Amino acid sequence: MIIVLRPQCGASAAEQVLEQVRAAGLSPHSVSGPDGQQVICALGGPDVDLAGRLSAMEGVARVVPVSPPWTLAAGGGRGPVAIDGPRPLTVGGGTFLTAAGPCSVEGQETYLAAARAVAAAGAQLLRGGAYKPRSQPASFQGLGAKGLEILAAAREETGLGTVTEATDPRHVEAVAEVADMIQVGARSMRNTPLLTEIGRTSKPVLLKRAMDATVSEWLCAADFILSGGNERVILCERGVVSFDQGRRNCLDLAAVVDAAGKSGMPVVVDPSHATGRAHLVGPMALAAAACGAAGVLIEVHPSPDKALCDAHQAILPSELTALIPRLEAVFEAAREPESSEVVTA
Amino acid sequence: MIIVLRPQCGASAAEQVLEQVRAAGLSPHSVSGPDGQQVICALGGPDVDLAGRLSAMEGVARVVPVSPPWTLAAGGGRGPVAIDGPRPLTVGGGTFLTAAGPCSVEGQETYLAAARAVAAAGAQLLRGGAYKPRSQPASFQGLGAKGLEILAAAREETGLGTVTEATDPRHVEAVAEVADMIQVGARSMRNTPLLTEIGRTSKPVLLKRAMDATVSEWLCAADFILSGGNERVILCERGVVSFDQGRRNCLDLAAVVDAAGKSGMPVVVDPSHATGRAHLVGPMALAAAACGAAGVLIEVHPSPDKALCDAHQAILPSELTALIPRLEAVFEAAREPESSEVVTA
Amino acid sequence: MIIVLRPQCGASAAEQVLEQVRAAGLSPHSVSGPDGQQVICALGGPDVDLAGRLSAMEGVARVVPVSPPWTLAAGGGRGPVAIDGPRPLTVGGGTFLTAAGPCSVEGQETYLAAARAVAAAGAQLLRGGAYKPRSQPASFQGLGAKGLEILAAAREETGLGTVTEATDPRHVEAVAEVADMIQVGARSMRNTPLLTEIGRTSKPVLLKRAMDATVSEWLCAADFILSGGNERVILCERGVVSFDQGRRNCLDLAAVVDAAGKSGMPVVVDPSHATGRAHLVGPMALAAAACGAAGVLIEVHPSPDKALCDAHQAILPSELTALIPRLEAVFEAAREPESSEVVTA
Amino acid sequence: MIIVLRPQCGASAAEQVLEQVRAAGLSPHSVSGPDGQQVICALGGPDVDLAGRLSAMEGVARVVPVSPPWTLAAGGGRGPVAIDGPRPLTVGGGTFLTAAGPCSVEGQETYLAAARAVAAAGAQLLRGGAYKPRSQPASFQGLGAKGLEILAAAREETGLGTVTEATDPRHVEAVAEVADMIQVGARSMRNTPLLTEIGRTSKPVLLKRAMDATVSEWLCAADFILSGGNERVILCERGVVSFDQGRRNCLDLAAVVDAAGKSGMPVVVDPSHATGRAHLVGPMALAAAACGAAGVLIEVHPSPDKALCDAHQAILPSELTALIPRLEAVFEAAREPESSEVVTA
Repeated sequence: MIIVLRPQCGASAAEQVLEQVRAAGLSPHSVSGPDGQQVICALGGPDVDLAGRLSAMEGVARVVPVSPPWTLAAGGGRGPVAIDGPRPLTVGGGTFLTAAGPCSVEGQETYLAAARAVAAAGAQLLRGGAYKPRSQPASFQGLGAKGLEILAAAREETGLGTVTEATDPRHVEAVAEVADMIQVGARSMRNTPLLTEIGRTSKPVLLKRAMDATVSEWLCAADFILSGGNERVILCERGVVSFDQGRRNCLDLAAVVDAAGKSGMPVVVDPSHATGRAHLVGPMALAAAACGAAGVLIEVHPSPDKALCDAHQAILPSELTALIPRLEAVFEAAREPESSEVVTA
Repeated sequence: MIIVLRPQCGASAAEQVLEQVRAAGLSPHSVSGPDGQQVICALGGPDVDLAGRLSAMEGVARVVPVSPPWTLAAGGGRGPVAIDGPRPLTVGGGTFLTAAGPCSVEGQETYLAAARAVAAAGAQLLRGGAYKPRSQPASFQGLGAKGLEILAAAREETGLGTVTEATDPRHVEAVAEVADMIQVGARSMRNTPLLTEIGRTSKPVLLKRAMDATVSEWLCAADFILSGGNERVILCERGVVSFDQGRRNCLDLAAVVDAAGKSGMPVVVDPSHATGRAHLVGPMALAAAACGAAGVLIEVHPSPDKALCDAHQAILPSELTALIPRLEAVFEAAREPESSEVVTA
Repeated sequence: MIIVLRPQCGASAAEQVLEQVRAAGLSPHSVSGPDGQQVICALGGPDVDLAGRLSAMEGVARVVPVSPPWTLAAGGGRGPVAIDGPRPLTVGGGTFLTAAGPCSVEGQETYLAAARAVAAAGAQLLRGGAYKPRSQPASFQGLGAKGLEILAAAREETGLGTVTEATDPRHVEAVAEVADMIQVGARSMRNTPLLTEIGRTSKPVLLKRAMDATVSEWLCAADFILSGGNERVILCERGVVSFDQGRRNCLDLAAVVDAAGKSGMPVVVDPSHATGRAHLVGPMALAAAACGAAGVLIEVHPSPDKALCDAHQAILPSELTALIPRLEAVFEAAREPESSEVVTA
Repeated sequence: MIIVLRPQCGASAAEQVLEQVRAAGLSPHSVSGPDGQQVICALGGPDVDLAGRLSAMEGVARVVPVSPPWTLAAGGGRGPVAIDGPRPLTVGGGTFLTAAGPCSVEGQETYLAAARAVAAAGAQLLRGGAYKPRSQPASFQGLGAKGLEILAAAREETGLGTVTEATDPRHVEAVAEVADMIQVGARSMRNTPLLTEIGRTSKPVLLKRAMDATVSEWLCAADFILSGGNERVILCERGVVSFDQGRRNCLDLAAVVDAAGKSGMPVVVDPSHATGRAHLVGPMALAAAACGAAGVLIEVHPSPDKALCDAHQAILPSELTALIPRLEAVFEAAREPESSEVVTA
């Protein structure tokens, strides 16, 4: 880290800073500028709370980290993530994933009908929430364990792998039995007891970015899962808060490219929650495919006007059927020439 | 709610909307304007998910709620909240509360020393985290059950009531045994399993606003606690996300007045997390007292440069000692003349 | 508009609202709900300041507009915009525009070299600022009138049309003489004297969205230009403020689709200012092409490490050369099947 | 500045960075860490655009400024600002200023009535806009030159100094003739031609913070005025954009303390624009007085339901009369003990 001292902070205040740095096992280098500026460079070292303590010292103006706060557990070149569903899939390995389904599992009959439609449209993964984090206690909260059973039946019938959300550390085990990928919702990204519990499972994890999380905080959340030993993390951008309430949230596609570049993890996009408007879902899914996202997660409902949850952002199965080939064509067209050569070689 | 139809949406699309509204048990009134505008008013009614379904219909441009999404469980005139600590306190009843202490319980000796200093400075409630929601797995995560024991010892010794955070539904019972008030941190405001579990306890709850929550969403979170039967909720503003990273967050004092006015609940302010800068804590605490907040929650540490957590935002016990009389003087000076008459009567 | 009255506001307060509405020439309809809710619908009518006055009345809880605040002057189906440069161009008519060039005109020799490279890379329009709105007085502020001369020389030599910014109403005439399209920068979107002056010219206008403007406010800014009689407005999204400072701004592509749908105007994207990172420019330009933007505005500099302005976000001419065919391929691949049939017919 | 190199960027890339730094006249110091980290410290030096050029270099991960981007022209200890109105005032010298009046000058009769009421309530400065920056062309745009005349008449009659806005560099001279303080509105904070023109006048300037400006950008805007030779700048916080649309903007009082501390300039607060709700104006004005703001700017209108502009945020003259003594009492109560001793000495 770089410690910027206050101008004229005095030799004794500077010396105290140097001592703190040395006490933490680092070797400080002090650099002075022509007009009284003084900085102390303290490179290396893992003490994540040291910066805060230094900031509190009298002579310190501010502390600038040099290393990012996330370590991605082991670090190094993470790559594609395998999902061991009924039909094995790889996310991030040069193909584009479409996961789709209703927001929530509302009942056996309607969910199975939706699942069949999603499979027929060509999606590769089936989504649907049994445990729903909702904003109001009077809203439909999901069917819970019964919802998981229905999801399992849909998986059996369609042959599609499933992704569903866990919201409570006490349900992680039950969710992991049914889900081929466990979803951490945006509202749970900072729920460290939940992340820790999911990090102990062996299932792939879809980690959504909180609506107010920086890319850096998002990768720190991934660290909680990775540090439990679960190495199969897929990130999911679903929009962030914004001053413009014309759309539900603000889809931050530059963050997708940034997070993928920094972490090496596959990053997928949820255009349904990001926009909250059915007519914006297709264009934003296409944009995701063009900028190198590894896939999309799309809300599809056969009868949005009967949906118990997020009706206004669901597209129809027929719209998904028309969208999937365009997504694949855009993904191909956007590919860098070199990498497409590698693939055709 | 008000349903704004698309211009020229056609009589059949409008009729379908009217049917949906009637099916939900409401009586719609259709109003047409001179230039093809058409709105349907559907007043009353509790169906919180109906608006979403209507939004998904073909003829609907948008749905505008008339009632707020929160009900504050029973509704009506909520007032001051009693805290049954060693010395009973009332929050919101015309006095100003100062809760203070270190960010986290770091060890028996240092915590007891801090607690004594906080008591000597005149604070009425003792804060300190045993379970800490941190951003990185390598950060200090709190002492857990051992931290609760130390907190109990400090309570015993100082005679001050305690406020401490629960982050996991599995720990709520243990926290409720030691805490005189259970804190829900900003990162947990949307953790509905946790809110539900805390709603089943009989302890007062300090509900912090999430960094990206509107006042409306904050009051919906209160609904989750109230609907479990726990009526003692105190709200706490601790800053929201902002484009200006010069301070840790942006303290939103207008939201304090707004939330208090809408809910009738006491609202306190945490200037330490809101600003993340020790020198801004005093001025923001004074501003809170002036605008009618019911109290403040302040991080105090005898040696910030040794703190394991949030060192840069802790003030010294001596600073707290100097601040408390100014807070009380400002609270009195800002009081509306009428209400002060009532008090002196 | 819809006027929501306060519960129990009383008949006299409601009557005063009705009178105000009638005094504004509108016909109010009053609707009451089962639990004391009361709303007044006042449809039609152009009085943009009436809502504010009604909001100030005693019985009024809030006023919800039904019509958007922008009128886009004449309204109706706006379409592609013609640019009468050396080679006439149409923006928004089913082709994808690439405008490129250095951030600012820094000198004759370097700018001409850059212009030649941009032309050789296949861009259709040349950008470069003579008047630069900078954040600090000590920064390079542009060459002013001399910069316009150099721009004219580059236009002459390359045969490319030019787009350059006006920042001061006193310079609009001089800029309009040289520019084939006048740019209104994000910092000037709310500069109504400037918008008004530009609305009196006959040149196409590139209207950038302010970093804190909603889509609605952006379209209101377009109204200032259109209402002066200048009908050739192209909108440009360049990123909005966000809590995540990892990129310069947050590119809001859903706003591009939203603004295009609402206004019928062509909307282009500036991925250079939006991201402030050269390596994110290509992916975001591709995403823009995929979601239906009418084009991109890209900063290109032959030697970014010598640029006087925004060096960190400029890509190399060779990178532009490689990018343009990918942009066109993505734009084609993302096109809806129906519309591509129309084009091939 | 601190230049953080990419890990393993190679000696040649590092050497190129060192050369650029030396070419800019700075003396770089290179520091390496144990795990391949390398930073270059280049302290001192005024080249504000160098950081951008360095960022564009191959081996550079990022550049961290050490000095702030603003210089506040001469720097040093700026203090209270004198306003030479009919009755001389000092802003920032230990007293609390209340400026008040209607949003805009709507007509001779109504404005004079409002001005008399404001004077009677005890305000020290009269506000009112002749040139109004509005969001829509159909909104009332102010009376222009006629409005200035009315303002002059009100000044004459009440003996109060005036503050009014300039929005166009072509009107600055006319505004300066009538105004005792020239206001730069939030929408004009980045209008550098306007700032430059105002910097050439000798009138005190009230510089509002743009709704999306960091404190640092706000102080840079002050630099544009100061560098023209006009040393009398007063800053004004009026709320920033936020994701919570429950209030018009988010009043950022911590920024007030921050900006005052960094610049030494007086900072006042506009609670009317910040909240956009009349009932929040009083509480936020009191909070401003408590945290050390130098004053407030409040919209007052005798008949808000007839106001042509911002009616919903205007308070009544009687409310101002009741508020002013509370503001003064709070300002006194919040004062630090030491400084009040100085004043009574």
